Amino acid sequence: MTPSRTSATFRPPISEAISWLDGVTFPPERPLINVSQAAPAVPPPMPLREAMAEVLLTDASAHLYGPDLGYPPLRAALADRTAQIYGGTVSGKQVAITSGCNQAFAAATMALCDQGDEVIIPTPWYFNHKMWCDMAGFRAMPLPTGESLLPDPERAHALIGPRTRAIVLVTPNNPGGVEYPAPLIAAFRDLARENGLKLIVDETYRDFHSRSGAPHDLFTDPDWADTLIHLYSFSKAYRLTGHRVGAMIASQDFLSEVEKFIDSTTICPNQLGQRAALWGIENLDQWLASERDEILSRRAAIEAGFPRLEAQGWHLQGLGAYFACVQHPFEMPSNLLAPDLVRRAGVLLLPGTMATPADDPAGARQLRIAFANIDADGIETLFTRLENLVN
Amino acid sequence: MTPSRTSATFRPPISEAISWLDGVTFPPERPLINVSQAAPAVPPPMPLREAMAEVLLTDASAHLYGPDLGYPPLRAALADRTAQIYGGTVSGKQVAITSGCNQAFAAATMALCDQGDEVIIPTPWYFNHKMWCDMAGFRAMPLPTGESLLPDPERAHALIGPRTRAIVLVTPNNPGGVEYPAPLIAAFRDLARENGLKLIVDETYRDFHSRSGAPHDLFTDPDWADTLIHLYSFSKAYRLTGHRVGAMIASQDFLSEVEKFIDSTTICPNQLGQRAALWGIENLDQWLASERDEILSRRAAIEAGFPRLEAQGWHLQGLGAYFACVQHPFEMPSNLLAPDLVRRAGVLLLPGTMATPADDPAGARQLRIAFANIDADGIETLFTRLENLVN
Repeated sequence: MTPSRTSATFRPPISEAISWLDGVTFPPERPLINVSQAAPAVPPPMPLREAMAEVLLTDASAHLYGPDLGYPPLRAALADRTAQIYGGTVSGKQVAITSGCNQAFAAATMALCDQGDEVIIPTPWYFNHKMWCDMAGFRAMPLPTGESLLPDPERAHALIGPRTRAIVLVTPNNPGGVEYPAPLIAAFRDLARENGLKLIVDETYRDFHSRSGAPHDLFTDPDWADTLIHLYSFSKAYRLTGHRVGAMIASQDFLSEVEKFIDSTTICPNQLGQRAALWGIENLDQWLASERDEILSRRAAIEAGFPRLEAQGWHLQGLGAYFACVQHPFEMPSNLLAPDLVRRAGVLLLPGTMATPADDPAGARQLRIAFANIDADGIETLFTRLENLVN
Repeated sequence: MTPSRTSATFRPPISEAISWLDGVTFPPERPLINVSQAAPAVPPPMPLREAMAEVLLTDASAHLYGPDLGYPPLRAALADRTAQIYGGTVSGKQVAITSGCNQAFAAATMALCDQGDEVIIPTPWYFNHKMWCDMAGFRAMPLPTGESLLPDPERAHALIGPRTRAIVLVTPNNPGGVEYPAPLIAAFRDLARENGLKLIVDETYRDFHSRSGAPHDLFTDPDWADTLIHLYSFSKAYRLTGHRVGAMIASQDFLSEVEKFIDSTTICPNQLGQRAALWGIENLDQWLASERDEILSRRAAIEAGFPRLEAQGWHLQGLGAYFACVQHPFEMPSNLLAPDLVRRAGVLLLPGTMATPADDPAGARQLRIAFANIDADGIETLFTRLENLVN
């Protein structure tokens, strides 16, 4: 087969991880603990489901094509919500609704980059960002974050060259779990602006941030739109993963470029998912606050329980939102250890090698635990199984 | 702004056409006739809407991520349906469900082509195919079809070079309306196979084909999967445009490449649309047959009414499925005439220039009428308005 854009990248990590389950049986007393995917395992609350059903039955337009850049009331509502959280001014025309947040990232980079252009991304990185850059012909330039998992603006500066178009920050980070401090995010904005780059800030997990209030102050800058491209997802907040609704906030001119990509790949986001997201914004604030509390309590359970793994050489490197980024104590590299854990521990998680360049040794020691789907008891069981591995 | 992938292509035609309506008022006695977009203007039948509502309320999995390549029961059902219509053998593993048929085209070309590779497409072409090739860095090689609107395999042969990867056929054609005869499609399959190319056959409008039975016999070839990539859409058949569900049928190996693109742009197709498409296959055969009858009667109304426009120099070049491709009698090129028709005739349609390369004079004379949304009375009114233009 001749080389193609897709042949330039690797198999989707979640699909590969799921394939490790083939032929493995899990006894009833030790069921699989699946912490591989950052996704709610339960549907949205029933009132939202009922509201969606009502839309299907009463709103004909929810079945028809809508505008490429999204349902105008949702665009306006997300603009208002963004200004409310972060301060500053955002208009509905600066919001595009996308078919999930991956599409927002793909569209943003397509509107920024040409063949061979470069995008700086801290590592470990979100695997789909790397995959997309590979396929689209963009160079994902790894910015290693080291022990802290926090990217260093100085080190990023050294990576900027004539083909650099953007810097990408994911905060809270996937897979690192770390929440980037507001001053660090602002420093990256300054770096991007000074070098004529865009700063893409993916806040898919912002509703589960441990700090209350605005996670950064970028929108309070009246000129935010000259540099910032903000990505968001409704999937996690309202458990809408199956409905594919994400968003991008950027300048109106930039969105007119983004529209070309959306038009040619999906025409418009599906209409019902957009109605659901709007209903969520309008009705689920209290519910979302309790969801956040629950995630934070699971995070606390990870933190409280981890010392017994530390005794065996495990290390908790990053923890936040849906993720714990841990270093394992084994000789075996993570890409071999992860499939092995399915059989030996009944645990499915992703190896760090799926989130780092092949030449970066950090990934071989790291594992990503997407803990949002296991409660405190599940975390206890997970830790016991990991603890027993050494024995 | 530096060049980017999106800057390599033009504004989405439907968005541009809709912008022509800005500031134009349509008196109640002469409302706008919108024949610009090939889309049902009415929602799916109520039993389907009720079935979808039921899914939302009772099936938790319809709210969660699903497999990248689609909902397995829908994949199996489309495989069966395809074998039933065309003969031959198709398995569910050879079916991918996509977020609309544009994504299927984008994914197929990404799995076939690398930067600078070539795809042969008959002109006038479907504008999103051209836009996607521009953005993805593929060269869309125009294959002019001339007066018949039917592509010539000999002429296509002459375009094949070392970078050619695929030939694309859309039948019934958008924007041409013509239905490609089965032997012509088979000749293109042979041409593709002899030259180690893939043949992409987009049959988005096949449910409205004027001939009963299989529109071609490609699937009866036991080796179809070595050459054929078949694209389909559920949007038109079941009026699901707002739910974004399309499909690709190809070899299982090829779909494992396609999966990378789907994973990185949308992760999976939205779940509810897939349930709706499955319900449609299982329950709407009779309903779809009557939809087809209605479309065919509108087509007949176009044919019957056209002679009075011919008297004024109009020419009906192609007619089928949702489209009439007409040649207008004016000096003014179509890209100027189309916006002018909004004001002068209260008619919105697409100019041929949106479907032809800039250096092809054919587009300046052509207009695309997406007639599926106007009934016989609407067609009569449309023709009267066009007739009055000359006077």
